[in-house]
Amino acid sequence: MTDFILQTGATIGILGGGQLGRMLSVAASRLGFKTHIFEPGANPPAGDVAAQVTTAGYDDLGALTDFASAVDVITYEFENIPTEALNHLEKLRPIRPGREALRVSQDRITEKDFLRDLGLQTAPYMAVDTAEDLDRAIAAIGTPAILKTRRFGYDGKGQARLKSPADAANALADMAGAPAILEGFVDFSHEVSVIGARSASGQVSCFDPGENVHRDGILHTTTVPANLTASQRMDAVLLTANILNALEYVGVMGVELFVTPQGLIVNEIAPRVHNSGHWTQNGCVIDQFEQHIRAVAGWPLGDGTRHADVEMLNLIGDDMDKVPEISAEGNAALHLYGKAEVKAGRKMGHVNRIKKSAG
Amino acid sequence: MTDFILQTGATIGILGGGQLGRMLSVAASRLGFKTHIFEPGANPPAGDVAAQVTTAGYDDLGALTDFASAVDVITYEFENIPTEALNHLEKLRPIRPGREALRVSQDRITEKDFLRDLGLQTAPYMAVDTAEDLDRAIAAIGTPAILKTRRFGYDGKGQARLKSPADAANALADMAGAPAILEGFVDFSHEVSVIGARSASGQVSCFDPGENVHRDGILHTTTVPANLTASQRMDAVLLTANILNALEYVGVMGVELFVTPQGLIVNEIAPRVHNSGHWTQNGCVIDQFEQHIRAVAGWPLGDGTRHADVEMLNLIGDDMDKVPEISAEGNAALHLYGKAEVKAGRKMGHVNRIKKSAG
Repeated sequence: MTDFILQTGATIGILGGGQLGRMLSVAASRLGFKTHIFEPGANPPAGDVAAQVTTAGYDDLGALTDFASAVDVITYEFENIPTEALNHLEKLRPIRPGREALRVSQDRITEKDFLRDLGLQTAPYMAVDTAEDLDRAIAAIGTPAILKTRRFGYDGKGQARLKSPADAANALADMAGAPAILEGFVDFSHEVSVIGARSASGQVSCFDPGENVHRDGILHTTTVPANLTASQRMDAVLLTANILNALEYVGVMGVELFVTPQGLIVNEIAPRVHNSGHWTQNGCVIDQFEQHIRAVAGWPLGDGTRHADVEMLNLIGDDMDKVPEISAEGNAALHLYGKAEVKAGRKMGHVNRIKKSAG
Repeated sequence: MTDFILQTGATIGILGGGQLGRMLSVAASRLGFKTHIFEPGANPPAGDVAAQVTTAGYDDLGALTDFASAVDVITYEFENIPTEALNHLEKLRPIRPGREALRVSQDRITEKDFLRDLGLQTAPYMAVDTAEDLDRAIAAIGTPAILKTRRFGYDGKGQARLKSPADAANALADMAGAPAILEGFVDFSHEVSVIGARSASGQVSCFDPGENVHRDGILHTTTVPANLTASQRMDAVLLTANILNALEYVGVMGVELFVTPQGLIVNEIAPRVHNSGHWTQNGCVIDQFEQHIRAVAGWPLGDGTRHADVEMLNLIGDDMDKVPEISAEGNAALHLYGKAEVKAGRKMGHVNRIKKSAG
């Protein structure tokens, strides 16, 4: 991939038209870029703020070719893009972040092997393809443990908890024959995440770590500043920079970390803007979405210094009923995704509540 | 106009597709709304971030009907919309801000009469239709003075300065036969503006006044906080609220004020978001664009408290050459409008430089 710097009026192609693509489109517009969304589903949220939308499947090579021809660079809002589509697209236009980040993050075993090779701590893990594999993994790792599909998981989907070895058969059935990974239980006090960015020229910048609380496997709140010692905060940022540099990464990445007495344990990495970074929209001059667009466009990174204490609360399903009340709150910034249909478990929006200025 | 509250997924129609419409569209998306832009010119900047664009003239009643039918409420990014188009549209959908604000602000004489009737100070003025009118006006008001067209002026267009009575003929010729107004010279120390907002339920909120510097008749910088005493600041906010309430206004309005030893003199009002309010994008939790959309949608106003000191610098024409340098600055937020063609005097973007946190 040769170096390039996009000029005002250039077009950024985005694979995926959900809320992350929507907020990436808005950030792109702020820098004078157009966006073109590629999304199989009809009426994607990102389509409301994009110059162009292609509605087609990832197996439609003609549509992929037309899409690539119409854009200057390609990025994505989710990591589970079919490999064949990526192989086709990368012949036509640069893809940022690059293929290596996708290869590593699309498979939980590959990801954990990569992190271990960097000297980072992860939960104990073993690959599980068969009932015999699972018995061996339980014997080695113990319970409680979590069985996850190696690929295509998100928001707690494709996961089964094992309280004891007796749960093995049911958990394996939940995988529906897909290759899986058994992950040992990590005894952590809380979870934090770092939103890191790396520019095409190798400049690295991380946002202040946020502290995450999940409910039913879905992110509930992210709070900054996180409850971390100065040395933990430094560790979190340095290990994120380590990951970004090892992948020669270009763009924004989310790194989820468990905080334990034995140090920080990497839960998972996401090669994209991340729900736990939404607080940056109201806590920083440059947010994670613009930081990603800057990197993808070959620009220098912006100033992501945190200027306020923020709590980000996800609005999921019926939480939309609270919007009238939240809209009248002081120090609260609503971000709604324009999804017409409210469904249980569906991310409909979020609110950033500003607690106080950090200046 | 009956009361209504727009729900997520509703569509806001915007007359005008320039940078103000573009930033209004982005703010609308943040609250879950779609936008539909009506604009005679091709490829409007707002079209890049809108769900729909209608390209048609304001005399195309069929296009206006289709546009109105496709939206839930109509607003606008500029005040010089032809009256016939407004007459047609208001039969179909509510227009916010309302017709009275447009009637008053579309004609400089009507505007100044309105302000005087509210007990506010303006520059001395007289209507000028003929050479005889101009002679009488010069005799009454004196020189230096400024001759302006009564309607359709912006960014210093349609204006001629008179240093002495000898300039009368040339100045009148510049009006090209259009009805005009002679405005006396105001000896002011500096100009400030207040961005005020009023909700459909009558809630009023003003952003902190900004101090404006113009170059060649175009806004150059706005700086907050403005150089004002506490009582001047209070006067500025109260007179803006006075104007908003008198018009039963719904939306955001820009009020330009001259600061003089004799008090604040109203230069002009603009019934829309205003260039001198762009600093709010990086100085407040809720910016002027979202405040306008909230009002137009029937929502409560948001929290516009200023949390930082900001200098907004307009990027005009060749200022775009400075973008690479500005993009690497700390504490600087770029906002580019995606206009492909750079022209002298054309507003291409702006940068908000954060000076320090006001918290």
